[in-house]
Amino acid sequence: MAKLWQKTTNVDKLVENFTVSRDRELDRQMAAFDVLGSLAHTRMLESIGLMEKSDLELVQRELKLIYADIENDNFEIEADVEDVHSQVEMLLTQRIGDAGKKIHSGRSRNDQVLVDLKLFFRSQLQQVVEETQKLFNQLISLSNEHKDVLLPGYTHLQVAMPSSFGLWFGAYAEALVDDLEMVLAAWKITNKNPLGSAAGYGSSFPLNRTLTTKLLGFEALNYNVVYAQMGRGKTERIIAQAISAVAATLAKMAMDQCLYLSQNFGFVSYPENLTTGSSIMPHKKNPDVWEIMRGKCNRLQALPNDVAMMTTNLPSGYHRELQLLKELLFPAFADLNDCLHMATFMLQNISVNKNILDDPKYAYLFSVEEVNKSVLNGTPFRDAYKQIGLDIEAGNFNPDKQVNHTHEGSIGNLQNEQITAAMGDVVDSFNFKKVEEAISWLVK
Amino acid sequence: MAKLWQKTTNVDKLVENFTVSRDRELDRQMAAFDVLGSLAHTRMLESIGLMEKSDLELVQRELKLIYADIENDNFEIEADVEDVHSQVEMLLTQRIGDAGKKIHSGRSRNDQVLVDLKLFFRSQLQQVVEETQKLFNQLISLSNEHKDVLLPGYTHLQVAMPSSFGLWFGAYAEALVDDLEMVLAAWKITNKNPLGSAAGYGSSFPLNRTLTTKLLGFEALNYNVVYAQMGRGKTERIIAQAISAVAATLAKMAMDQCLYLSQNFGFVSYPENLTTGSSIMPHKKNPDVWEIMRGKCNRLQALPNDVAMMTTNLPSGYHRELQLLKELLFPAFADLNDCLHMATFMLQNISVNKNILDDPKYAYLFSVEEVNKSVLNGTPFRDAYKQIGLDIEAGNFNPDKQVNHTHEGSIGNLQNEQITAAMGDVVDSFNFKKVEEAISWLVK
Amino acid sequence: MAKLWQKTTNVDKLVENFTVSRDRELDRQMAAFDVLGSLAHTRMLESIGLMEKSDLELVQRELKLIYADIENDNFEIEADVEDVHSQVEMLLTQRIGDAGKKIHSGRSRNDQVLVDLKLFFRSQLQQVVEETQKLFNQLISLSNEHKDVLLPGYTHLQVAMPSSFGLWFGAYAEALVDDLEMVLAAWKITNKNPLGSAAGYGSSFPLNRTLTTKLLGFEALNYNVVYAQMGRGKTERIIAQAISAVAATLAKMAMDQCLYLSQNFGFVSYPENLTTGSSIMPHKKNPDVWEIMRGKCNRLQALPNDVAMMTTNLPSGYHRELQLLKELLFPAFADLNDCLHMATFMLQNISVNKNILDDPKYAYLFSVEEVNKSVLNGTPFRDAYKQIGLDIEAGNFNPDKQVNHTHEGSIGNLQNEQITAAMGDVVDSFNFKKVEEAISWLVK
Amino acid sequence: MAKLWQKTTNVDKLVENFTVSRDRELDRQMAAFDVLGSLAHTRMLESIGLMEKSDLELVQRELKLIYADIENDNFEIEADVEDVHSQVEMLLTQRIGDAGKKIHSGRSRNDQVLVDLKLFFRSQLQQVVEETQKLFNQLISLSNEHKDVLLPGYTHLQVAMPSSFGLWFGAYAEALVDDLEMVLAAWKITNKNPLGSAAGYGSSFPLNRTLTTKLLGFEALNYNVVYAQMGRGKTERIIAQAISAVAATLAKMAMDQCLYLSQNFGFVSYPENLTTGSSIMPHKKNPDVWEIMRGKCNRLQALPNDVAMMTTNLPSGYHRELQLLKELLFPAFADLNDCLHMATFMLQNISVNKNILDDPKYAYLFSVEEVNKSVLNGTPFRDAYKQIGLDIEAGNFNPDKQVNHTHEGSIGNLQNEQITAAMGDVVDSFNFKKVEEAISWLVK
Repeated sequence: MAKLWQKTTNVDKLVENFTVSRDRELDRQMAAFDVLGSLAHTRMLESIGLMEKSDLELVQRELKLIYADIENDNFEIEADVEDVHSQVEMLLTQRIGDAGKKIHSGRSRNDQVLVDLKLFFRSQLQQVVEETQKLFNQLISLSNEHKDVLLPGYTHLQVAMPSSFGLWFGAYAEALVDDLEMVLAAWKITNKNPLGSAAGYGSSFPLNRTLTTKLLGFEALNYNVVYAQMGRGKTERIIAQAISAVAATLAKMAMDQCLYLSQNFGFVSYPENLTTGSSIMPHKKNPDVWEIMRGKCNRLQALPNDVAMMTTNLPSGYHRELQLLKELLFPAFADLNDCLHMATFMLQNISVNKNILDDPKYAYLFSVEEVNKSVLNGTPFRDAYKQIGLDIEAGNFNPDKQVNHTHEGSIGNLQNEQITAAMGDVVDSFNFKKVEEAISWLVK
Repeated sequence: MAKLWQKTTNVDKLVENFTVSRDRELDRQMAAFDVLGSLAHTRMLESIGLMEKSDLELVQRELKLIYADIENDNFEIEADVEDVHSQVEMLLTQRIGDAGKKIHSGRSRNDQVLVDLKLFFRSQLQQVVEETQKLFNQLISLSNEHKDVLLPGYTHLQVAMPSSFGLWFGAYAEALVDDLEMVLAAWKITNKNPLGSAAGYGSSFPLNRTLTTKLLGFEALNYNVVYAQMGRGKTERIIAQAISAVAATLAKMAMDQCLYLSQNFGFVSYPENLTTGSSIMPHKKNPDVWEIMRGKCNRLQALPNDVAMMTTNLPSGYHRELQLLKELLFPAFADLNDCLHMATFMLQNISVNKNILDDPKYAYLFSVEEVNKSVLNGTPFRDAYKQIGLDIEAGNFNPDKQVNHTHEGSIGNLQNEQITAAMGDVVDSFNFKKVEEAISWLVK
Repeated sequence: MAKLWQKTTNVDKLVENFTVSRDRELDRQMAAFDVLGSLAHTRMLESIGLMEKSDLELVQRELKLIYADIENDNFEIEADVEDVHSQVEMLLTQRIGDAGKKIHSGRSRNDQVLVDLKLFFRSQLQQVVEETQKLFNQLISLSNEHKDVLLPGYTHLQVAMPSSFGLWFGAYAEALVDDLEMVLAAWKITNKNPLGSAAGYGSSFPLNRTLTTKLLGFEALNYNVVYAQMGRGKTERIIAQAISAVAATLAKMAMDQCLYLSQNFGFVSYPENLTTGSSIMPHKKNPDVWEIMRGKCNRLQALPNDVAMMTTNLPSGYHRELQLLKELLFPAFADLNDCLHMATFMLQNISVNKNILDDPKYAYLFSVEEVNKSVLNGTPFRDAYKQIGLDIEAGNFNPDKQVNHTHEGSIGNLQNEQITAAMGDVVDSFNFKKVEEAISWLVK
Repeated sequence: MAKLWQKTTNVDKLVENFTVSRDRELDRQMAAFDVLGSLAHTRMLESIGLMEKSDLELVQRELKLIYADIENDNFEIEADVEDVHSQVEMLLTQRIGDAGKKIHSGRSRNDQVLVDLKLFFRSQLQQVVEETQKLFNQLISLSNEHKDVLLPGYTHLQVAMPSSFGLWFGAYAEALVDDLEMVLAAWKITNKNPLGSAAGYGSSFPLNRTLTTKLLGFEALNYNVVYAQMGRGKTERIIAQAISAVAATLAKMAMDQCLYLSQNFGFVSYPENLTTGSSIMPHKKNPDVWEIMRGKCNRLQALPNDVAMMTTNLPSGYHRELQLLKELLFPAFADLNDCLHMATFMLQNISVNKNILDDPKYAYLFSVEEVNKSVLNGTPFRDAYKQIGLDIEAGNFNPDKQVNHTHEGSIGNLQNEQITAAMGDVVDSFNFKKVEEAISWLVK
């Protein structure tokens, strides 16, 4: 008998280790949000008569203490506790007895995790927006500072037309505005309340989901409980797409940086301590930060596909592997925020080469300029075009390297104020204040 | 000499065929939008003195005639003409002489294609929204019609809790609301004017980009011209993500349908002429439409990754392969709209099985219900839970199969009105009317 | 009644169009292989007594005539015929009457398509191998021709160490050897006989699957009939991975070409008629062919993921969407073979710049060389290293630009013979001759 | 001054943390292989006169001691040591002085990492093959054991034809044979020696790469040094495809298991301690292990795409982000081997339902059987077909549920011996013994 039991136990261990995977480690990051969910849920339970007022007071007091402990990094999931939900419930029961056990009424593990994830994702998305804004500001500031420094513009990687550092930095700033539109869509889809959907089919208790929606600062409900459950996997996929949008912009900028730091371009440079060199090759300024950023961001560009591959063709209803998505999403947020932070830091230290266009190989940049000047002076296009062509062939092409572009968004008229205003509009649409106020009230 | 020339020509042919790829075939779809771009561009040229008023009148008249021809399917790209832009310019020049040649001033092929693509994508996104609304309405209507018909709810593909056709149809309706948030983000990013960015570095002509923005009904400019060029590839990637959002919902619904049509479920059925059978196996109702839909939509779920793979690590500036993205995006829109249309059509013909829960294997669905009832009647949870467990073990579990769920989004309170209102809000945010009015004015 | 029938018919049309998709167009490419399958199948039927000898003779004669018509491009799938299998069967029946109807005994549509696809894929894989060999030979030839022309070697896109055109061309040649190992794996998995698996569950007829295996030149059977059916989707996925291996090498080479053609590198050039220029910018040699190749090959790199996304989480057994994989695979083969062909063609016309290292920015390439020379002459490494460092700082670094690398695979010892031998070994492993002989015998 | 230095240090910290990423943690897994590389490299150095015989003896003795420590888990990378290579070199120098410093001559960090990775991947691929064999044996054993137990065969998820557990288990066994063909291709590409390629452009030292190839048990060299460097990223991508092949088979089997465990199928079951239940729902046997396996394996199916996205469009030469691929590959091997192990374990505990076909809904499975029987008894096909159809319609269809399939690979003739022989052939092709012998000799 003892042996049989032993075997059974061993077997359970194997299955448990395999299925629990990295949950305990990842759940630590959700701890504060699990407490927030319980703070709201218990207030609602009391309001519909499923919890005594006195129990509610006990529970709220202790949950707020646990919340403070978590915020002070004074919390951990103990070795024999399965997940963060059990840890919180266990602490509560240890401290206030049976009242602690009641917080799970009218809830299933499914909607508890759903709401924890949404609250966690919400906070992470806010951080992405904040880090993106810092990078945006740095880019706009560099664009303004170097607006008169010219740069070759390339098409097909061939020298084509004059560009400028003002345009180059400003372009990446404007890119971030559009990227935040994707983050905003992900935010709107995330910022809806799944609590009350139970195991995905609702509950026979007379829950007040509108109340928890308000308490947790959600914009609306995931109304239909089957749809609330479907949000698992879908929310992750769409957030991954939002992450990939920002990452794609960073990756492209990183590629430009790596090229422009090559001796074959030599457009920008960094202090030695921000590049890696070689003890013997003094010419080397390896752009490791930008290469690692390019790599991390390209990996993030593949993230939505990872999520899609893991969720495709799953019929409706909960499936256990949905938990594994945490292993994809949680580090992705950390990586993206890290990359945004490092990009801002690097750009605070960039130097631009102010004499790039002195190199004769860039003279041809101005051929179209010269044609256009002739046209504006009255020469028919075909004639102007032919003359410049003949000059170039004859080696008589000595362009005036002044550029006079004046239209919206061009070298002489960057419209960085308009771009900044557009960024402000997108950020305002998140309405972070509403969320912050709700959370403050819950934990005060 | 003749031989050499011959060789040169042959070689050019090979390169040309390889690089032009399927452009001519795909460009036909952009024809109307190319004309719209020229209608706006030439008005702007005249306003800044780069085109005579008399030329403008000629050009506008003829462009509108060509537009009408295109709308009447009376237009084609001739065999020896490279693309739609050349075809339009050639027609114009044949008909009104030199004035026709002037429409290209202050523009490069790059921003001409960019604006054509954005106008085309805009019209396709609008069609996606319209087809999505039709499917949404059908789903809401089925949800209301069958709100009282129960269905087993599954978790882990195991029989779990009672669900209903009202919930099931309604869940997919609500899913489409969130999907349209992604389409809206794509629309907002698409609906900005790149015209005037020329080859990606602007122009020395005093273009009025604000005017073309207004004439073409764009919400704003892609301000920075380098960013305008960066929109090539990025717009496609983000649109692909929006398409994938709707496709993921359709694919999941298709998977449910295939399962529910299996003899092992038998929850829904279709008229014989909408399924394929076997001449010998009368029991077979192969759900081919849903299988093909699942396949097409899963292929669309992979689309954003295709675009990302083709654009990753390209430094800033135009690269020729960006043209190949048309081969991905153009059929994707057609496929998605096709799938939305077929899903609506199929659902107009669905029959639901009204007696599913009579099968004894579904009795256990009600175990949680019974526990909750006892709790609501005053029995402590642990006791209720134990009693039902004992009943089940003893074979005495005869649940009352009535379900009384009342909270928001549950079986008895589907909140289809709220979901419908949410759909209305998202659709209104597109403001299609503004775009339609601008286009009408341009071609009238 | 007429009306009802009309409606039914209309409905069928919609379903039919949606589900048949592009089958008829793609099936044309499989026609010859469908006939081959029938030639083998009918011989086997006769051998087990399911077809009369006289019928066999009629059928074989007519099938061979149809095969010849297909080879002479004298065959098409008629407008009202569903697919290639029906077309062949119809032609047969028109010509030889009832005997034609018997070719389908002991077969289902499923294993007929499976075997057609495998035969088609086999022929396409052979073509990939042949085109790859041509490119390989061109690369080896260029490597030998330019083995003494030096090139800067880069790490981190920074000038690092001396390289050579011999190494550069040779590297891509050797890459193709390893890529063909992947193609070989795909070939081995493809080259097994699924015929006789019927609908995926075998048949009660006493089929002789070993005989059809031999007749069709397959290396072995897909033994288990359920596994034979599982090959649908799996074969396509693995072939897509093989395609992506070759494509990845081409895409990387194309990226190098685009960089090296840039004025910032200027390492290689092409005749004007193989690049696109600008009528006004004589400096422009846009590498359109390489850009389009990079784009097409990156799209092919995403192909395995497309197939995986469409087949993931499908339980065992046939599903209708598996047919859609033809829309992915068929054009992929055409694109890859096209790209291989164009790469060979372009490289036949490449010119290399022989004086690259005269540019002073490449002098530092030789710093490590100089240190190593000192070490080989007896100076301790640390001392040699310090001295060169001081020389560089003092501007006294005037390296001898001769490179004396002698070990295996280095500049002075490319080992192109060994690489060529390795290529030969891989190609021999395919044993195409066995397949060709079987097919010749079948159709003779 | 102190402040400036401080600042520099701080900055370095940030850059260092960002770029080093998870290297130290992952490098621990490569420690033994780093020592193997040095054992071979130093023997070669001595053979070409770049190391004294006495130094070689010291170095070999100490390296073997370190190797033993690593094998005994008595080794760690210290907190202030950058990576495994530095840790080994530091230990060596502490113990044997200057001789320890000499092991890096004629090598760069690049080819040292390349060879470490290849040796590590080789050992991991061997483990995959061994775990796959165990699973294969379990599947064959179950196939033989349950060869007479019938199962419904599905097409389109519709009940179609009789299948059997013998076929079902055997199909997955045979699938693994083909999957190992992909693993073999990855093995062959991995099992080539990059050592001596230095930073990707070779060395001026007269290295003997053929010798290290032999010492390390590689099958051949990566000849061309530029190609050897290109192997970074490519090897990972192709290994990821091999991993994905095995994973795809496991994921499909897991999907079947989840379905078959559903109450709607009920084909298989497991002991309670291997499924998770619900304390209140005794009918629930959640297939968590199979769901987690499906999720992990689908994530692995997306792995090749992750690698491709991170390496696409990188020109030739080393780039720093290639190091990040370790973060993808290392856990992928662990996950795959874990999944293979768990699949074997679960299948050791599976029970199959022996009376599935008693359920009347499966009677139609036999309709084709009955038709075929009539045909074999001389009834023309059209007549037989009509008669059975009429019987079914009239409710007179009482099929004989005996199945008599005899051809190769069918229910009555599984050919598990042939499949087992095919598995043996593939495994033999790896020739693990050659590698093991080389390694044994190196460390003895």
